[in-house]
Amino acid sequence: MIPNISETICAIATPPGTGAIAVVRLSGPTSHAILESIFSPAKKDGSFPELRHSYYGEIVDGTEVIDDAIVVFYKNPGSYTGEDAAEISCHGSLFIQNRLLQLLISKGARMAEPGEFSLRAFVNGKMDLLQAEAVDDIIRSRTGAAHKLAVKQMRGEYSKKLSELRKQLVDLTALMELEIDFSEEDVEFADRSRLRETCTALVNEVTLLADSFKAGNVLKHGIPVAIVGEPNVGKSTLLNKILREERSIVSDIPGTTRDFIEDTLTVGNNTFRFIDTAGLRTTTDSIESAGVERTLVKASEASVILLLFDAADCEEDRIQSGIEELKSRIEDFDDKKLILVINKIDLLVNAPRHLRELLEYDVVFISAKRDENIGELMEKLTNAVSVSENTPDIVLTNVRHYEAFSVIGSLLQQAIDHIDSGMPQDLTSSFLHQALHHIGLITGEVSNEDVLDSIFRNFCIGK
Amino acid sequence: MIPNISETICAIATPPGTGAIAVVRLSGPTSHAILESIFSPAKKDGSFPELRHSYYGEIVDGTEVIDDAIVVFYKNPGSYTGEDAAEISCHGSLFIQNRLLQLLISKGARMAEPGEFSLRAFVNGKMDLLQAEAVDDIIRSRTGAAHKLAVKQMRGEYSKKLSELRKQLVDLTALMELEIDFSEEDVEFADRSRLRETCTALVNEVTLLADSFKAGNVLKHGIPVAIVGEPNVGKSTLLNKILREERSIVSDIPGTTRDFIEDTLTVGNNTFRFIDTAGLRTTTDSIESAGVERTLVKASEASVILLLFDAADCEEDRIQSGIEELKSRIEDFDDKKLILVINKIDLLVNAPRHLRELLEYDVVFISAKRDENIGELMEKLTNAVSVSENTPDIVLTNVRHYEAFSVIGSLLQQAIDHIDSGMPQDLTSSFLHQALHHIGLITGEVSNEDVLDSIFRNFCIGK
Repeated sequence: MIPNISETICAIATPPGTGAIAVVRLSGPTSHAILESIFSPAKKDGSFPELRHSYYGEIVDGTEVIDDAIVVFYKNPGSYTGEDAAEISCHGSLFIQNRLLQLLISKGARMAEPGEFSLRAFVNGKMDLLQAEAVDDIIRSRTGAAHKLAVKQMRGEYSKKLSELRKQLVDLTALMELEIDFSEEDVEFADRSRLRETCTALVNEVTLLADSFKAGNVLKHGIPVAIVGEPNVGKSTLLNKILREERSIVSDIPGTTRDFIEDTLTVGNNTFRFIDTAGLRTTTDSIESAGVERTLVKASEASVILLLFDAADCEEDRIQSGIEELKSRIEDFDDKKLILVINKIDLLVNAPRHLRELLEYDVVFISAKRDENIGELMEKLTNAVSVSENTPDIVLTNVRHYEAFSVIGSLLQQAIDHIDSGMPQDLTSSFLHQALHHIGLITGEVSNEDVLDSIFRNFCIGK
Repeated sequence: MIPNISETICAIATPPGTGAIAVVRLSGPTSHAILESIFSPAKKDGSFPELRHSYYGEIVDGTEVIDDAIVVFYKNPGSYTGEDAAEISCHGSLFIQNRLLQLLISKGARMAEPGEFSLRAFVNGKMDLLQAEAVDDIIRSRTGAAHKLAVKQMRGEYSKKLSELRKQLVDLTALMELEIDFSEEDVEFADRSRLRETCTALVNEVTLLADSFKAGNVLKHGIPVAIVGEPNVGKSTLLNKILREERSIVSDIPGTTRDFIEDTLTVGNNTFRFIDTAGLRTTTDSIESAGVERTLVKASEASVILLLFDAADCEEDRIQSGIEELKSRIEDFDDKKLILVINKIDLLVNAPRHLRELLEYDVVFISAKRDENIGELMEKLTNAVSVSENTPDIVLTNVRHYEAFSVIGSLLQQAIDHIDSGMPQDLTSSFLHQALHHIGLITGEVSNEDVLDSIFRNFCIGK
């Protein structure tokens, strides 16, 4: 059930915890009255609250001063939610944050549900569902690529694309229905082959969009990379070396590396997500074969496989049989990039460089322990992934949209089949209507409480 | 070394982590130029940046849009720091926060040192050292009492008191030095006994302030309570029960109980800090006597001791000898409040209520496990502590101030001793000068880089 949006709501909008400042948001019909009752501006010139003006003053509970604060008031519809709203920046102690919330609640506000500010923005026509979802994606984005996609979506580029699709579909439907209306007069207004052509073009576009979901997922979560190899070849050392380097770079800016995902690494435009192959990471694993099995399953998800060997134990035969085993046991092996990594070259006088000529795959000689040639490995890894700089205009990253587009594609295909088999046009037209309905579901033009609830419930508090 | 305050600085001001929004602060001479270079307001009416006006628009890095944001610009001296400054509210993803900082840095800002915004506010005369310290205290305050004290201090009440003290001391010194100037003419302007009287009044005031530190510490950190008893009487169960209840109350407001200190509990106006008596919490401790010893040392810090007994094993003799043992082994036992807690009454048909008449201490019968009479125990605990509602006007909570006042008190006392023993007035006057110097150190009228550094270094980032 979606919350009652006629009430005034409040929430801490900044990250949980203690900081220099925190921001509490207030939105709803009584925002102005509540603000007047708890805030005393330092400048008593009677101007408060001039819209969008930042006022310094005191948060008061009766005669007690709770804190100094900065307050900005927004009048409907010129706010994020489209309602009267306020942002209160107070000192960032937990005590004050809680005290301020309690004060607002005592004045008649209630705690906002997760995503309720964005839900209200949607209901009040400030943004469509796609844009609202993009806001949450932006907050959760951890990589440059995911961030860029979300910003595009928030700025409405995705919505624009959908409204073009929708228009084409409406035109097509109208054309078809015009024909139905006059069908008794035996006049065929719309050329059947033209109808079919338009419909096919639409199917292609929709299919492209649905197909972009896989790429979108990679952009959002990173390119999956598996480090595979027998026990004790140095998989764990290599992973730590790769990840530690990145961390030391990021932490050059103090206070900015908090909450870093352990196994994700961004190099240039690519974000790599190292798949947890912990089953093979430990050499003390007694049930070794079970570990191998788990790793192979994991490796099936990868786009790139780094197959590690110990330099002291990497005759060509051994490598070939290792590759053959992967080939036989990993799904869609041929779709994946394979890089052979010969580790522990520091322990040899001469690395077996002749392997480069013998093998058809990329070969890199490294010492994870001594940090030798890791740069070269990263370069090979970056070259191996062909996520082009020019990502398509619209890339699906949301499973809800992906599912809707899959349905739309199949409805349009059914429409084409009907045209081909000469079925009555009104039946064909009903498929188009259903497709239109599903486009409306994506943007939120068509919505119901359950859908809205399931979308906004997963947003963060205060947004 | 204090940082170079002629540079423009930036920092994330909101708590670390992900949230709906985050605020990045910018302060220094190039704030305006930097802001112009990275922000494009949605309304292109040329008004940007009108002071203290909240602008919606886009954060841009060249042609790339980083985020939608709200920006407010403040002109010197009308900002927190007294410099040109800006607050940028962006979406609260770690990615955007870091990206925005990097962008600001690429435009010539540098990361702020901890407390540097407040340091600049101090250097630019926006607040004295006491007020700056109060800001940090406010952010760190976890209890209502600590918060109230810090707000008072931030609002300058403490500074006012100090400036009164300072004035009295200046007058006294002037009087004494006037006498020195004319001493060769054998005229005694200032009545010695009047000088002594004024000096004594000052010593008393300063001593009261120094003495308030103990109370201040309790207000700041909570009233120390120790739960003591033999193994297996239910100390741990009781503590968990007490703390869990509070937590469930606080967590009625979703999203507000994060980062809670495990062993602190606020009931009404009192905050109790339960001293860790882990040594006795476990019954499997084989070196039991060592555990007892540790607990007794800990219990010596407490203002209140809850002495627990098992209801099935609490004959009067046993209780009396338990009390005697505490008396003999705990320092300043008579200054502490003792509450006898008879636990596990759920296991008895009749609680030994006659003990109430036999013993001169408060006795509470509880079942920690079944949650019986915990409310009564909390009531007794609250009654036992006599922290008056009317805390003195000024209460020291900062060890730096406490140390300064101790020195000032002893200097004034030495001045009195000199007056009494008829020593030359110029020597007496030198003590008063030193005392004035130390008052100046508290407010920051006298300061040096090392002191400033050590004060602000411990502030949080972004304040």
